[in-house]
This record gives sequence, structure tokens and C-alpha cells, in this order.
Amino acid sequence: MIFSSALIENAVNEFARLPGIGKKTALRLVLHLLKQDPGQVKLFGEVITRMREQIKFCKVCHNVSDQEVCSICSSPSRNKALVCVVENIRDVMAIENTQQFNGVYHVLGGIISPIDGVGPDQLNIYSLVERVQQQGIEEIIMALSPTIEGDTTIYYLSKKLKEFPVKITTIARGIAFGGELEYADEMTLARSISNRLPLESYVQK
Amino acid sequence: MIFSSALIENAVNEFARLPGIGKKTALRLVLHLLKQDPGQVKLFGEVITRMREQIKFCKVCHNVSDQEVCSICSSPSRNKALVCVVENIRDVMAIENTQQFNGVYHVLGGIISPIDGVGPDQLNIYSLVERVQQQGIEEIIMALSPTIEGDTTIYYLSKKLKEFPVKITTIARGIAFGGELEYADEMTLARSISNRLPLESYVQK
Repeated sequence: MIFSSALIENAVNEFARLPGIGKKTALRLVLHLLKQDPGQVKLFGEVITRMREQIKFCKVCHNVSDQEVCSICSSPSRNKALVCVVENIRDVMAIENTQQFNGVYHVLGGIISPIDGVGPDQLNIYSLVERVQQQGIEEIIMALSPTIEGDTTIYYLSKKLKEFPVKITTIARGIAFGGELEYADEMTLARSISNRLPLESYVQK
Repeated sequence: MIFSSALIENAVNEFARLPGIGKKTALRLVLHLLKQDPGQVKLFGEVITRMREQIKFCKVCHNVSDQEVCSICSSPSRNKALVCVVENIRDVMAIENTQQFNGVYHVLGGIISPIDGVGPDQLNIYSLVERVQQQGIEEIIMALSPTIEGDTTIYYLSKKLKEFPVKITTIARGIAFGGELEYADEMTLARSISNRLPLESYVQK
């Protein structure tokens, strides 16, 4: 692509580094910014820079945070004995959006995946074991993706935590609400039958 | 959406102002930036801010430029007597990418569209008339979209320029290369027959 301005070319190249944004979309975004007030664009640049420079990761659960300890871990109304183990901070947001979970989190920062070169040492597993050891945690919910990597990670964690008196659970697998039976994969459908629930727990939802 | 960090929330809101980017995509982009080096993210912010603050519009053709006069207008190898009138700077880039046009441009900054409240006074029409009057322009190519608004603008411009000894042409309308006849709209197909070309000019392409 030929740009008549180096300023625009640089801005387009920077936008095109973002995931899912190609040169054409980047150009569209840059031309949009060109029509905005310079102060507004400056604010955009500042907000992004400040976000990256000032963001902290909670030293308890490794979630993103503005302080040393995140707002979830420091909230007195959350149940500290119930820990939900998730892969990344996006999962924390997804679960928080349900407004149904009252415990705290532990962000692993990934899942065990030898193909991608991610082993247990790259993940926040040691600090989880430490939390279980020191903070009187009663239950750990494994909220990881139902993939081979997720199951491997669950298996690894459960072995690591075997020696401690903590209950380990996983989130329920089954047919999604609004999902059609005929389009469900066989494994999910088979599991949803073998793990069937009494009607009362369905009506309660 | 619930964010555990005000820094992230602000960054997501800024990204979500961009056209075609919703909250979910914005969050994905922000989480991507979180994984980048802080220096790299700072550069991103600076490049955008600098682009908006330092960009100029060429005082001859109104294209974006790093200098007072853009690189196209100041190039000695371009034919200044041949002016291509386009709607916006994206059209300039599209035509430049063909590497087939050796003249200069005139960016109107929009087209006449009473529904959107855009009249001739909002466009760079006066400066075009002035260029024709003063700079010995021989031909003006109207490269506007083949819509009612585009045709209205062409008609308005041709009336304004009637008194000057300048040849006015429009880009050819017809079946696109690689286009299937049966999917072409009737008007385009009808025009492409009435404006048929001698075979020599086809082979030359």
C-alpha cells in the first residue's frame, strides 16, 4: 500500500500489529482518528500507555489490578475459602459477569501445553499450592477449558494438591442453555446423561 | 462488563470508540497490549498522538501530507495539467496503488449529499475552481462513486467549470475484470454495451 504521509504509514503499521487487524482495517481506524479532535486522540494514546505502565498483577491471585492486591481478593464480602482456578484474566471477567460466584480466583496464566512449550513451571502453580497450604482453603473449583490441555492441567494440579485437605471440583460440563440436542457433540451429550441431575436442581435455575 | 481494573476499563472504552470495534474486541486488543513490552505500547500511543497533531493537509490538493504541499503535488515527474477529482484521501491511496495515474489530485472532502447535510460549501470546490482558473489545467477526471450523490457532484462541478477551457472526463463505468456478466446489474451492463470499446484498446490492457 502506498501512503503519501509517513505519519499515517507509521500509525497504520502500529494498528496492524494488533491481533485481527490487517492493513485495510488499520487504515480505516487511522482515517477515523484523523477526523477526531487532536486532544481526544492524545487522550487515547495516553490511556493506553498509562494502562500498560501502571497495571499491576495481584500478588495473591495474579489477576490484573490497580493495587498490589486486587479488588476481589481485598473485598471483605468474598469467601476466601473458595478458590476458582482459571487460565487467564479474561476467564475471571467472564465469571464475574455472571455475578453468581462469591469466592476468589487464582489465575494460572495459561494451561499446560507441551506443544506450545508451556510446562508447569511457566504457570502460577507454586503460588496456588502455597495458598492452599497457608490460607485454609476449603474448596478449589477447576474452571479450565474442556480440552486435552485443560484436563492435563487439572490432573497435574489435583496430584499436587492431593496431600492437602481441600475439596477439588470442576465446573459442570453439559448441554448449554439454548443449545439444541442434535447439534451437541457425542461426548458432551454422553456426559450430560451420565451426570444427569435431579429435577429440583434444574427448576432452581 | 465488569472490569477489576479502572486502567483496563478506560483503555477498553477508548478502543471501543473506534468504528467497527465493540467492547469484546476492544478487550481482546487491550489484553494483547498487556502482554507487550511497555516501551512498545508507549510507542504505539506516541505514534498515534503525533500522527494526529502533526498531520497537515496539502494546501494545493487537500490530501494528507507531512509538509505544506504533499509529495504528489510537489513531485516534478507528475503531470500538473491532469487533475483527478476524488471524494476522500482513501480514494487517492486506491488510485496511487494502481500505479497507473501520473497526474495530480483534488480531494473534495466528501460529496454533495443534502440528506447528510453536505452542500457544495462544505467541500473543497472553490479551491478547485481557483486551480483551474490559475494553473493551466487541461483535463479534469471525475473519479467519484457512481451513486446519485456522486453524479450530483459531477453535475455541479461541471456547471461550475463550464466557463473555463478545460476538458472534463469521468472514469469508465463497466463490467469489472473478473466479473461475471450474469451477476452485473442491468444499468452497468447496458452502459457497458452503449460505451463499447474497439478491440485494440482491450488488447492493450
